[in-house]
Amino acid sequence: MKSKMKLGMFYWHCGHHIAAWRHPDGVADSGSNLQHIVELAKLSEEGLFDMFFMADSLTFWRADLDAMSRDSHCAWIEPFTLMATLAQHTTHLGLVCTATSTYDRPYLLARRFAALDIVSGGRSGWNLVTSGNPAEARGFGRYEHMEKAARYRRGREFAHVVRGLWNSWSDEVFVRDKESGQFFDKEKLNILEHHGEFFDVRGPLNVPHSPQGEPVLVQAGASEDGRQLAAETAEVVFGAQQTLEGAQEFYADVKGRMATAGRDPDSLKIMPGLTVMVAESHDEAVDRFEELQDLIDPAAGLQLLSQRMGHDMSAYDINDPMPELPPDPRGGSRRDLVVAQARQNNMTIRDVYREFASSRGHGLIIGNPGEVADMMEEWVTGKACDGFNVMPPIFPSDLRSFIRLVVPELQRRGLYRTEYEGTTLRGNLGLTRPPWSPDDYRKPEEAEPAAVRVL
Amino acid sequence: MKSKMKLGMFYWHCGHHIAAWRHPDGVADSGSNLQHIVELAKLSEEGLFDMFFMADSLTFWRADLDAMSRDSHCAWIEPFTLMATLAQHTTHLGLVCTATSTYDRPYLLARRFAALDIVSGGRSGWNLVTSGNPAEARGFGRYEHMEKAARYRRGREFAHVVRGLWNSWSDEVFVRDKESGQFFDKEKLNILEHHGEFFDVRGPLNVPHSPQGEPVLVQAGASEDGRQLAAETAEVVFGAQQTLEGAQEFYADVKGRMATAGRDPDSLKIMPGLTVMVAESHDEAVDRFEELQDLIDPAAGLQLLSQRMGHDMSAYDINDPMPELPPDPRGGSRRDLVVAQARQNNMTIRDVYREFASSRGHGLIIGNPGEVADMMEEWVTGKACDGFNVMPPIFPSDLRSFIRLVVPELQRRGLYRTEYEGTTLRGNLGLTRPPWSPDDYRKPEEAEPAAVRVL
Repeated sequence: MKSKMKLGMFYWHCGHHIAAWRHPDGVADSGSNLQHIVELAKLSEEGLFDMFFMADSLTFWRADLDAMSRDSHCAWIEPFTLMATLAQHTTHLGLVCTATSTYDRPYLLARRFAALDIVSGGRSGWNLVTSGNPAEARGFGRYEHMEKAARYRRGREFAHVVRGLWNSWSDEVFVRDKESGQFFDKEKLNILEHHGEFFDVRGPLNVPHSPQGEPVLVQAGASEDGRQLAAETAEVVFGAQQTLEGAQEFYADVKGRMATAGRDPDSLKIMPGLTVMVAESHDEAVDRFEELQDLIDPAAGLQLLSQRMGHDMSAYDINDPMPELPPDPRGGSRRDLVVAQARQNNMTIRDVYREFASSRGHGLIIGNPGEVADMMEEWVTGKACDGFNVMPPIFPSDLRSFIRLVVPELQRRGLYRTEYEGTTLRGNLGLTRPPWSPDDYRKPEEAEPAAVRVL
Repeated sequence: MKSKMKLGMFYWHCGHHIAAWRHPDGVADSGSNLQHIVELAKLSEEGLFDMFFMADSLTFWRADLDAMSRDSHCAWIEPFTLMATLAQHTTHLGLVCTATSTYDRPYLLARRFAALDIVSGGRSGWNLVTSGNPAEARGFGRYEHMEKAARYRRGREFAHVVRGLWNSWSDEVFVRDKESGQFFDKEKLNILEHHGEFFDVRGPLNVPHSPQGEPVLVQAGASEDGRQLAAETAEVVFGAQQTLEGAQEFYADVKGRMATAGRDPDSLKIMPGLTVMVAESHDEAVDRFEELQDLIDPAAGLQLLSQRMGHDMSAYDINDPMPELPPDPRGGSRRDLVVAQARQNNMTIRDVYREFASSRGHGLIIGNPGEVADMMEEWVTGKACDGFNVMPPIFPSDLRSFIRLVVPELQRRGLYRTEYEGTTLRGNLGLTRPPWSPDDYRKPEEAEPAAVRVL
C-alpha cells in the first residue's frame, strides 16, 4: 500500500498570489469577511485536508506606507481567534496557526492552545515561529529586535515550557468524587517548576488536559538552526523547497537528524508549501496564471521582493538581472535559495517578483489535473516530502478547482484518503503523542515546596 | 417608561456556590465540558441576557495543594478561546471576558478582542482587571508581584494603548479599488505612536476595524483607584455591593465622578453581581439553598475564606466570631466590607464562609419569583444599579429557574426587554461608541517618521 499523502490548506488573505484581490474572482475584503473564511474551512473539510493553516505576524509594517496601501495583506483576523471560530463550523479539519515565541509568553500561549484543543475536540496545532521582522519589536517596548541565535534559544525553551504546562493534567488526575469532596488526585498532578535562560515558570496550567494531550507542534524553519530544532521537536514541518532535488536533500537531512536525536522519522511529517494553479486543460491553467501575473502592480511587486529579500529593492530597474545581495541581516536561508535560483536561470528582477507573487517563494505547479498529480506523486514517492501545504492563488475559486480536479485524481491513484481516518489532527496525520517526562525539566537548586501557601 | 434593566449571565464553573459540583444537579466536569457551556450560552440568549461574562486568573494557585484538590475551580477553558467559540453558537448574546493588564501585552490583547468583535458580529467586551493574586507572577518570570498603585497606572495606560490600536482603522480607510490597485487610503489610517511609563507601542493594529469600533470596556473595581478608573474609562462596572444603601452610595459616587470627568452618566452601566436562588415558593428556595450549604466541606470553606480575605484562616475555629483582620496586603476594599458586615451581624467564621460559598461576596437573594423581582426592582428604581450580573448557584438548573421564573415576572412589570434591541453588545446595552481622538496620545519628543522603511 502506498502511504497516503498529507495535505494542509494554507489560508492567506485573498489568495497566495499578490494580485489575487484585484482579480475578478478575488474577495477583496477577505481580511474581515468571516463568512468567506468559514466557507474556505468547510471547503477544506470537503477536500479532506488534514489541516487549515494560517500564518501570522505581529506587525502591519513590511514596507513603507505607500507600498502597504497597495497591499491586501495589511490587516486580518487574529489567527487564534479565527481557529476557535472555525472549529465550530467543522468537525474533522485540523486547525493550525502561527504564534511567535519571540513576543508571546509561554503561560498565555499554553493556555490558548490547550483551550483550542478542547473547543475543537482535539484538532489544534501550533506553528512555532521566531519573529524575523524587526518591525514586530515596535509593538512590544523599547528594546531592539532579538538576534537570531537568541531567538532560536528562546524558541526552544519556550516550546519546552509550553509542553511542561500542557502535561500538567492527565486523564487520571480528575476524581470528582461528589461523596468525599475530592476533586483531583494531587499525587498525579505534574507541577512544572522551570528555571531557564529566558523563562521562570511555575505550573500547573489552569486549563485541563486536552483531547490530543498536546496540540501538534508545527515549524517552518529551513535554516541550519531551524532544521535542527525541527528534527528535535517538530511534528510537522512546512519547508519551502522549490525543486525535487532540494526537497529530497532537506527531507533526508531532517529525517537523518531525527534518527540522531533518537526520534522515529515517521513522527515528523514534511509538507512543503505548493502553489497549485489547476484547470481542466494545461492551456487554461497557464492562461489563468498569466492573467493574474499581469495584474501585479510593479510597485507592489518590488515591495514584495524587498520584504522577502529583507533588502530595499525599490531603486532597482525591474528589467535588470537579479543582483547578488549582501548577507541577510535577518538570518535565515531563504534569501540565498532565491538568489541562487534566479541567477542560475538568468531571471530579471521582474521575473523574480512575478515568481514570488505567484508562489511566495514556495513550489509552483501550473497544469491540468494529471500534471499536478504527477508532480505531487513524484515528490511523495521520491522521498521529497510526506505531503504538501497547498497554496491556492485565489480564494475560493482555486481551492474549489483543486478539490474538484486534483483530489479525485490523487484518490484514483491511491495517494490520498477517501475519508478521514479519525477526528483528531494527530489521528489524521498518523502521529502519536510524543514522549514526555517531568524528569526532562531542569529543577531549581532549592526547589520551593509545591505546597507553599500562596494566597 | 421605566428604564429596562441590563442583565449579565456570570459563568463560573459548576455554579457560583462552592459546593455546586457536589450537588446532584452539578455538572462536575464543567471546566472542560464544552457542550455544557454551549448550552449555558444558548440558555442565556433565550433569557435575553445582555452578556455572558467570564472571570479569569492566570494561576492555578489560590491555596495549598490539599485545599486546591477539593476545589472544582482548578482548571478551566481559557476564556478568550471560549468566547470566540460561543460566538458561533449564539447570535445576540454579548461575550465578555477578563484579561489582565498586569501580565498580558497591549498589542496582543488589542488584536484578540478586535478579532473577537469581528467573529461575533460586534458582541465582544473586555473586562479589564489588574492581577490581585501574587501567585500569578510565578507564571511570568522572576520579578515580584507589582504593587497596587503601579498596577492601576499600568492598567490605565494599557487601556489607553489598546484603544489607540483599536482606532487604527475605520470604515472609511479601506478603498479596495481593483482597478487602480489602491487597497487603503493611507491618509485616513491612525498610526499610534505611544510612549509612556510602561509601554512603547507603534501601530497600526494589523486587525481591521471591528463592528462595534471598540469592544465594550468592563471593569470590576470597588476600591478608590477602581472607582476613579471606572468613572474615567469603563462602560460597564460589576460592583460587589451587598446592601441597597451600599449600592446607592457606590452608584452616586461613580456617576458623580463621571460628571466631573466630563462623561455622560448614562454611558456607564453599573451591574453588581447577584446570586439568585429562586423556586416556585419561598420555602422551596430556602430548602434548596440549605441543602447546598450543607454540602460545603469545612476545609474548602476555610480555604475560600482565606482566599477572599487574603489571610490564612485555616487555624481558626469555625465556630468563633469573625475576627478583625490586619490591613489587606493586596490592597482593595472588599475585605473591609466583609469584615464590617460580619461583625455587625455577629457572624461566626462558619457563617461567613457559608455566605461566601453561596454568593462569593456579592449580593444574595433567596425566594420566590415575586420576592426576587421585588428586590431587583427596588435596586434599579432606587438608583442602586442599572442591572445585575446574575450568578446562579448551580448550572444549569438555577439558570433555567431564573429564566423560567424571574424573567417573565420582570417582563410583566415592564422592567426587562421582551426581545433584543439590537445585534451588538453596545446596541443592547444602549451604549454609543466612546469619543476618541488621536490628539489624546502623548507623542515622542522626536517622532520617527511614519513612513520609515522597516523591512
